[in-house]
Amino acid sequence: MGYPETAQGFVVEDIADGKWRNFKKSEFKLKPFESHDIDVAIDACGVCASDVHTISGGWGTDIPLPLCVGHEVIGRAIRVGESVKDVKIGDRVGVGAQVGADLTCANCKADQENYCPNAIDAYGDPYPDGTISQGGYSSHIRAHEYFVFKIPEGLGTNLAAPMLCAGLTVYSPLVRLGAGPGKKVGIVGIGGLGHLGILFAKALGAEVYAISHSPGKKDDSLALGATEFISTKGENWAESYKFTLDFIINTADATDKFNLPDYFSLLKVNGTFHMVGFPNNPLPQIQTRAFAPNGCYMGASNIGNRSEMISMFELASKQNIKSWISEIPISEEGCKEAVTRVYNSKDVRYRLVLTGFDEAFGKRS
Amino acid sequence: MGYPETAQGFVVEDIADGKWRNFKKSEFKLKPFESHDIDVAIDACGVCASDVHTISGGWGTDIPLPLCVGHEVIGRAIRVGESVKDVKIGDRVGVGAQVGADLTCANCKADQENYCPNAIDAYGDPYPDGTISQGGYSSHIRAHEYFVFKIPEGLGTNLAAPMLCAGLTVYSPLVRLGAGPGKKVGIVGIGGLGHLGILFAKALGAEVYAISHSPGKKDDSLALGATEFISTKGENWAESYKFTLDFIINTADATDKFNLPDYFSLLKVNGTFHMVGFPNNPLPQIQTRAFAPNGCYMGASNIGNRSEMISMFELASKQNIKSWISEIPISEEGCKEAVTRVYNSKDVRYRLVLTGFDEAFGKRS
Repeated sequence: MGYPETAQGFVVEDIADGKWRNFKKSEFKLKPFESHDIDVAIDACGVCASDVHTISGGWGTDIPLPLCVGHEVIGRAIRVGESVKDVKIGDRVGVGAQVGADLTCANCKADQENYCPNAIDAYGDPYPDGTISQGGYSSHIRAHEYFVFKIPEGLGTNLAAPMLCAGLTVYSPLVRLGAGPGKKVGIVGIGGLGHLGILFAKALGAEVYAISHSPGKKDDSLALGATEFISTKGENWAESYKFTLDFIINTADATDKFNLPDYFSLLKVNGTFHMVGFPNNPLPQIQTRAFAPNGCYMGASNIGNRSEMISMFELASKQNIKSWISEIPISEEGCKEAVTRVYNSKDVRYRLVLTGFDEAFGKRS
Repeated sequence: MGYPETAQGFVVEDIADGKWRNFKKSEFKLKPFESHDIDVAIDACGVCASDVHTISGGWGTDIPLPLCVGHEVIGRAIRVGESVKDVKIGDRVGVGAQVGADLTCANCKADQENYCPNAIDAYGDPYPDGTISQGGYSSHIRAHEYFVFKIPEGLGTNLAAPMLCAGLTVYSPLVRLGAGPGKKVGIVGIGGLGHLGILFAKALGAEVYAISHSPGKKDDSLALGATEFISTKGENWAESYKFTLDFIINTADATDKFNLPDYFSLLKVNGTFHMVGFPNNPLPQIQTRAFAPNGCYMGASNIGNRSEMISMFELASKQNIKSWISEIPISEEGCKEAVTRVYNSKDVRYRLVLTGFDEAFGKRS
């Protein structure tokens, strides 16, 4: 066998006893090719915290093995189904965290396909025929055209890759909550998601407040475009920022250690504490009256929709927005290094991108 | 001493060992009269769960004693400061849960005086001169004109009283979240707040879903104007209502016992689970990803603002909205009976109102 029936990828075969860091180059089945499908020969894949939550069992140990993760994919379209409208063979395209939806339910019809009850994730999710979706630490990905996005010319492949998940995940709530001129937006946690949060909030015209427990992130935050840096060190750190922000995008993984009322207190009346990224640990327990001093809200979102992905790339192209990345050549060792560094949350400024796919899988066309 | 230096009221003197149920007719000091103040001779006062949370120590035992509670007050203006604009002596007026604010801060200027950091509650809060505010289980209340509301003629005094706190508390989020034609609104908990939630959501033109763990509340809910009654009994009660409601107003005191993801699942994408009323117990601990299936929000509000109070009474008058109440003549025994029944959450359909103030305090003018 081989492509187009199968693809090659770096897979995790066992997650017990810390074995989730061990990747093996292997072959896996692709879903049957249908008329709306596009095959992408992959050139780069960002390393998302979701990859690590999944294979390390942090979100639960019931995952289909062997599994190939990765959902910040950029490559070239090498096969295009007969019904595909916008993508042609040779186009540079991206695939994010979602590869399918029924496209017929009320949510899909309302452009909320990221909340379709029949959504299919880029990896680890069964297609109707039983094939398990496999991610982008691999030679090829096959996806419905609705979830394949043309990448504007000016954007570098490796710089654009993290936008497919991390970028959209912050861009969607920024737009839905109204980031723009005159708005003050807090970004909590300066990492993979957070640094893109600052970049996009600023690009949308908002005044950005970077909020972090690491004072060492101040210089980077200002360089990324933040107007102000709020350090959460010290007892009364929130005191002088009460009723200041229209909303907050919380990208931190350590929210379980937060005193949430402090964060809420930064918000204007009826402001929103919006979380992206889903930590292993539950939220701290709070009283209902923690929301009372400003009538605020807390919630979360799941990636974004197609039109937001397209407008995000347009904005990134127009304003020449550059993710801050480090490249790691893809290999068994490279994948191990990448997920270990993300797991340890150290030494990542601010996104790792797997590259060198031609070396690992040969030139594909 | 006596009015206008003092008022008479039924006060709680000690809250240890269950003594919070024992009221004593007593005299207390009123704040110094200022040019924007209005004195109200009270004719009726609703009994709010807040009164009981406060005196039973559920919100904390550090309360100023002796204390007179009650913040759903209706009476007649009998003295009007020289700067008062809209109220004249003899007017029938109401006073709710807030009697003061600085009226100069950014929140006040933005018509968010209910979130003023210097707000003064109707009872138990110090005025700048040190006088503790005292509530409406009493002969008189003195309040700044901004927090005194003319009651439209058509509304009965006893029926209007519960609207001053319970009514505004549900009306404000209903309006801010957009209740109106084409919107589907859930009301959780059919009690003092919840029954007014159904009445006002319906009056605003929304389709109302009453949600309760007591199947016996079905008939009342439909009589109040709900289109549908959802019983939360049984394992899969939420299953057939997924993605149905634009938002939910949760009035229940037992939210700590809820499986919140079930309630969230009723919401459309980006819908809101909005809580009013502040239980003693904290919320159940949840995962951030509990918000993910529909990108929903959870929050709470604190009463409402002046313009919402005015528009609520206009709507109530125009549509002849009637609270469901039981009257209890005010006395030491009457207050005890009232707070005990509210504490036990039984036998209240759906608001108790203390009446007969002339008998208790004499005719005042």
